Amino acid sequence: MKMVEFTPIGVIRTPYEEPKGVPIQPSAGKDIQGTVEVFPEFAEGLKDIDGFSHIILLYHFHLARESKLMGIPFLDDEPRGIFAIRGPSRPNPIGMSIVRLDRREGNILHIRDMDIVDGTPLLDIKPYVPMFDERDDVKIGWLEGKGSQFPDKKDDGRFS
Amino acid sequence: MKMVEFTPIGVIRTPYEEPKGVPIQPSAGKDIQGTVEVFPEFAEGLKDIDGFSHIILLYHFHLARESKLMGIPFLDDEPRGIFAIRGPSRPNPIGMSIVRLDRREGNILHIRDMDIVDGTPLLDIKPYVPMFDERDDVKIGWLEGKGSQFPDKKDDGRFS
Repeated sequence: MKMVEFTPIGVIRTPYEEPKGVPIQPSAGKDIQGTVEVFPEFAEGLKDIDGFSHIILLYHFHLARESKLMGIPFLDDEPRGIFAIRGPSRPNPIGMSIVRLDRREGNILHIRDMDIVDGTPLLDIKPYVPMFDERDDVKIGWLEGKGSQFPDKKDDGRFS
Repeated sequence: MKMVEFTPIGVIRTPYEEPKGVPIQPSAGKDIQGTVEVFPEFAEGLKDIDGFSHIILLYHFHLARESKLMGIPFLDDEPRGIFAIRGPSRPNPIGMSIVRLDRREGNILHIRDMDIVDGTPLLDIKPYVPMFDERDDVKIGWLEGKGSQFPDKKDDGRFS
């Protein structure tokens, strides 16, 4: 199949200058603030976003190491298939984070609950909608029982 | 910023031959079955995915019309900013669906709750994990109160 080309629509600004030390998920980065700078040519597309408390950011894991098909996730010691983990060194290094939207100032979104490194190229923003994005009766495979380690877990540099 | 290039890792097979008539979200396509064919060279990355009941598919909206910054969403009559809606004609047409994983046979995933057109190029698979992907105290802006129309809503062809 043909390659697909995307052009960043903005850049994500956070207090994390390198992947090492970044919380491994937004809920582990609770209240950490940052901004999303949407490039002015796309700013019109932000209309109506202010009404949403949470947004989904899709972005390029631009610092990820070359992709592998197996990886040792932050919450385990065993190698797992890359599509069964959330780490950045993936065949197509697309990151996804659900963050809290505090307010919008023109083309700048003020957000919190950050697990993203500073300077990350933004590819898309979608509104987070529980009726679309939540599921019942979920099984979480190898992650079962690993929840308690999770809130304080930070990137140790293994993927970058 | 530099363009980003991705190579499809597989293709999504569904009963929907064209965008018109496709459910607008997986929960509107409840129990509709399909498959994800991961190309053999990426199949090793599927290890451990069987334990998860739900997976997140990221894919290329390959039939989307040229991007606009405003769009009329399926659940409303008013134009909204493209980043406040989930439709496919976006600056970077990346689709995201959370689907149910029934079982895996080698490089084929049998899934249900489909809202995707047949032949869609797959970019990434991530495990769906409530502790990463669910939020409390959510506000949903213009979508507030539109939930009741949602379960039966189908694509009317407006974005393709």
